[in-house]
Amino acid sequence: MQFYLDGYSPGDPAPRPAAPGRTETHEPELPEAVDVLIVGTGPAGLVLAAQLAEFPGITTRIVESREAALEVGRADGVACRTVEMFNAFGLADRLLREAYWVNETVFWRPDAGDRNGIARSGRVQDVADGLSEYPHVIVNQARMQDFLLEHMRTSPSRLAPDYGLEAVGLEVEPAGEYPVRATLRRTGAEGGELEIRAKYVVGADGARSAVRRSMGVKMLGDARNHAWGVMDVLAVTDFPDIRLKAAISAAGGNILLIPREGGYMVRFYVDMGQLDPADRGARAKLGLDAIIAAAQKVLHPYVLEVKDVAWWSVYEVGQRIAERFDDVEPTARGTRSPRVFIAGDACHTHSAKAGQGMNVSMQDGFNLGWKLAAVLEGRSPAALLDTYGAERQVVAQELIDFDTRWSKAMGSKPKDPNNPEDTGQDPAEVERQFVEAGRFTAGFATDYEPSMITGEDTHEHLASGFPIGERFHSAPVIRLADAKPMGLGHVAQADGRWRLYAFADAADPRGGDSRLRRFCEFLAESEGSPLRRFTPEGADPDAVFDVRAVFQQGHRELSVEGMPPVLLPRKGRFGLVDYEKMFTVDPGSGEDIFALRGIDRLQGALVVVRPDQYVAHVLPLDATGEMRAFFEGIMRVPHAAHAKMSAV
Amino acid sequence: MQFYLDGYSPGDPAPRPAAPGRTETHEPELPEAVDVLIVGTGPAGLVLAAQLAEFPGITTRIVESREAALEVGRADGVACRTVEMFNAFGLADRLLREAYWVNETVFWRPDAGDRNGIARSGRVQDVADGLSEYPHVIVNQARMQDFLLEHMRTSPSRLAPDYGLEAVGLEVEPAGEYPVRATLRRTGAEGGELEIRAKYVVGADGARSAVRRSMGVKMLGDARNHAWGVMDVLAVTDFPDIRLKAAISAAGGNILLIPREGGYMVRFYVDMGQLDPADRGARAKLGLDAIIAAAQKVLHPYVLEVKDVAWWSVYEVGQRIAERFDDVEPTARGTRSPRVFIAGDACHTHSAKAGQGMNVSMQDGFNLGWKLAAVLEGRSPAALLDTYGAERQVVAQELIDFDTRWSKAMGSKPKDPNNPEDTGQDPAEVERQFVEAGRFTAGFATDYEPSMITGEDTHEHLASGFPIGERFHSAPVIRLADAKPMGLGHVAQADGRWRLYAFADAADPRGGDSRLRRFCEFLAESEGSPLRRFTPEGADPDAVFDVRAVFQQGHRELSVEGMPPVLLPRKGRFGLVDYEKMFTVDPGSGEDIFALRGIDRLQGALVVVRPDQYVAHVLPLDATGEMRAFFEGIMRVPHAAHAKMSAV
Repeated sequence: MQFYLDGYSPGDPAPRPAAPGRTETHEPELPEAVDVLIVGTGPAGLVLAAQLAEFPGITTRIVESREAALEVGRADGVACRTVEMFNAFGLADRLLREAYWVNETVFWRPDAGDRNGIARSGRVQDVADGLSEYPHVIVNQARMQDFLLEHMRTSPSRLAPDYGLEAVGLEVEPAGEYPVRATLRRTGAEGGELEIRAKYVVGADGARSAVRRSMGVKMLGDARNHAWGVMDVLAVTDFPDIRLKAAISAAGGNILLIPREGGYMVRFYVDMGQLDPADRGARAKLGLDAIIAAAQKVLHPYVLEVKDVAWWSVYEVGQRIAERFDDVEPTARGTRSPRVFIAGDACHTHSAKAGQGMNVSMQDGFNLGWKLAAVLEGRSPAALLDTYGAERQVVAQELIDFDTRWSKAMGSKPKDPNNPEDTGQDPAEVERQFVEAGRFTAGFATDYEPSMITGEDTHEHLASGFPIGERFHSAPVIRLADAKPMGLGHVAQADGRWRLYAFADAADPRGGDSRLRRFCEFLAESEGSPLRRFTPEGADPDAVFDVRAVFQQGHRELSVEGMPPVLLPRKGRFGLVDYEKMFTVDPGSGEDIFALRGIDRLQGALVVVRPDQYVAHVLPLDATGEMRAFFEGIMRVPHAAHAKMSAV
Repeated sequence: MQFYLDGYSPGDPAPRPAAPGRTETHEPELPEAVDVLIVGTGPAGLVLAAQLAEFPGITTRIVESREAALEVGRADGVACRTVEMFNAFGLADRLLREAYWVNETVFWRPDAGDRNGIARSGRVQDVADGLSEYPHVIVNQARMQDFLLEHMRTSPSRLAPDYGLEAVGLEVEPAGEYPVRATLRRTGAEGGELEIRAKYVVGADGARSAVRRSMGVKMLGDARNHAWGVMDVLAVTDFPDIRLKAAISAAGGNILLIPREGGYMVRFYVDMGQLDPADRGARAKLGLDAIIAAAQKVLHPYVLEVKDVAWWSVYEVGQRIAERFDDVEPTARGTRSPRVFIAGDACHTHSAKAGQGMNVSMQDGFNLGWKLAAVLEGRSPAALLDTYGAERQVVAQELIDFDTRWSKAMGSKPKDPNNPEDTGQDPAEVERQFVEAGRFTAGFATDYEPSMITGEDTHEHLASGFPIGERFHSAPVIRLADAKPMGLGHVAQADGRWRLYAFADAADPRGGDSRLRRFCEFLAESEGSPLRRFTPEGADPDAVFDVRAVFQQGHRELSVEGMPPVLLPRKGRFGLVDYEKMFTVDPGSGEDIFALRGIDRLQGALVVVRPDQYVAHVLPLDATGEMRAFFEGIMRVPHAAHAKMSAV
């Protein structure tokens, strides 16, 4: 957390000053035209809005059909990957403090001695060692959204949602500065419609997305007829694992039990069985009493006494995915760039059982946000926007395939071991699947294919622990200037910047035979340096590329004295030195980062990381030509009109 | 962090509901009479106010002569012990996120080759391993106070300071419900005086305390005539250790350099030499330019270019201590209990060099807060209040003795090794003293003597790592119910409760031969149990004594099933079970807590901890008579009028 660069100011340093021209509080009147219109304040819409709020030069508005922020229910599972992303928004500490931590998961199955009872059959660590420095946590979706809303409110844009507005129609015109014309309807008592023009519109408006419909995009996938009840309750029970995540397969049904934040609340997902597809009102007949009764039956002989219900719902599981994630039809791909996108439930729906919905939706928003910002600020070509659908549709399909298998496992009758003819699911198999799926459910299975923003794996062996296309996996380091132990990945903020992690070769970086030094000199001095080409005149030297170096020496063997100037950039109105660009190995952390992440100690390596924390490329430190070519494909020399990147 | 006990509510769970009868915002009108009047919103006054704000049954007011909260300057060193205390207020996470971490300290002395230059002579870890799980950090005193003010504002009392009021006189009447009559003066333009009555008044009104003067208490100690300049600056320098705490002894003077929060700001303490005692205006002649020039001279040949100055001051070092800390004259001690107290700079002044001022002052407030609350709520006899001065005066004297030695070391001319006749200080000696003082400067040297609240060391060997009278030193454990790894000490909140940490013997706690089980049964069932005697009717079972058990087994070997009911208390309006009372060893933490803290594995041990986190007693689990006798001396059977402890 860096602050006071341009002078000391009293009070909380986290809320940054409002950008010039932005009022301290949200302007209630919608403008006639905006750069980005986001429809829907769910997880996808709010992450996108929080990202765009960093860029006060971009006019963003986010509308929501409800009259106020969400207060109860919906999703609650927060994967490790999402905590990592929240850290980039400066929100991880508060989230971790407030949330329930899923440390272990237990499995219960019918008691071998009494098939009407249940017995604990297994217990596993929820997140495998080394997968992330963050835990898997649980907190109400409403709180996750509160955190993002606060981030927006204290951003340089001072962004807040416009409530009581829903999208009813969209038209994309073939040309013009604001080619998308959106019709919004006031959901409040006074009613009425209004029109707004936008450069880009993002439909994060849920499973029944109006934006999706107006684009004529179809959902592909299963019909739904398996009902689940969900309830957040305060209860008294003698079930001993009430504070552990528990998958319970009883003869009489299935429960997924998720302890919740605060120490007392618990969520139950209760299998309510198949609905009669002929009876369209079947689901409406299932009420809270039925969910509680079903849960009590599964928990027998343990007693469940529900004292208070914070929220409940009944829903049907269906796995569906949008045929495309933007408004460009397959035949037109490449001839024009997209103007309308869908994200979150608007393009993928599935069960809640694997705890993925909120997480994948947030990553949709994170993936799209920096791309829109880069294109709108003239730093990248519009073709960058094609990568959103290309990348996220693959992820959504993997989610749906996973969820189909997982829902089946969770929703099946447990096999009776006394009856070899029984066709039910073996509970041991559910446990095995759970452990196997750990990497997926933690959010780390995403592996983007080579594209304009994801390099080929030619040099991946130089940093084998940072696979290209996967998220940059933090590891312990020590910051050189102040000897602070920290996670290298934690320097990444959600500010739209690219990060160049230069892992040094073994030579002393202050000496002439250091590859790292020559790499830094190229960045600082060469005509072909991406820093020199793409950093706008007058901007801080790290405004577009945030260069960080990691040395193999211990921090007491080195000093900031004599280090390459690109690692000691001068910033702000006073030209102060930023001392936080250099790191060394952390001897206290067991294996050092070079060992943990498979960095070639002889050659070093450059690890290029996208603004959304995914590894874009791994290159030798001297492959300056390849680096240059890579960025020439993504970046544009800034227009005079966008002379300074607006992120503050 | 526990919440939703009495039902779910949306939004941030940290601000607790205002207590019945308390308005959401601070009532600007001062009442005619209050329980506690605090004078001064420095570190001592605000910690005291934050503690008392937890008790909405107590009417507290805190007045401040300034017109608003502090915005700049003053202290900035936050010892590990203070971070531990902040954690009890729920404020440690935010503090750690924002503050500079003092990881290492470097020492510079005159360059052996060129006595006009300087060279690094040493580098040490700032806080020894194992001293605390928290680092030594640096943040502006104004921010520390902001955190406490926010805690007050979101407490059940919704307490806020009354600005623009200073104390001008106090009188203590021999009897009456509100025996202290305080005269306050409005410092604003309109002026005027008003009178307020109080049961207790605390003068946290600084070195020139009006409360102290009105009590006729003298300050004992040195005159001051050694001047130091202090400045918080944004600067550009080639001095390589600008982001490390550095003690610099040059031929031309001394500097203590403290990097500050945010990555750019730095504090310099600059030795300005002896002042002429005959010249009363000598200090006023020293300005910012003189401080900068002196700093530049010390840093030579490195260049210091000051770009912006956030705050600066010149002060003289004097070590002084009040002859007593309350209004009871030595001859009257024991005949009546105190009604007026002084805390912080009002009773001890010293240099800023050891970074102790803010920390010791805050501990003054923490020591006094729970005692005032216990007496005002009728849970303890008024004699408890005598222990404040008895305990804190010893601590203050130790601080002053330490500071005298340390200031001398820091303020001396460095010895010239080329001149054996030179009487200067050997810089190596300064470094040695620094390391030796580590436990003191981290805030862990406090060791309260036996008293009504501190037991004798008869059984201390049962838990040798928890010395009686010292702060309870946290260690890693795993919470049984949800397998969460955490620090045992982190369960302690600043809520006025006593904590009984019962370390179990090796037997299975669910079996009949478990000492721990018998101890729990005594607490739950015996007539002599402090829980039964001192917990008010209708209060939660843990409202006065928070019982926590730590087992020797791994968490997977045990289950909450079959555990003693006192460890599964039923609480709140729904009678929900609190599952957070039981812990097991943490195999992932190296040595387990029984080894780390020297707990007798055969017998187990009871560690009694005061509301301010100091170990009050160590007893065998079966020494129920001794435990009973100990608490009979401190506690009172609650009056009907205070039937429920008001802490929420």
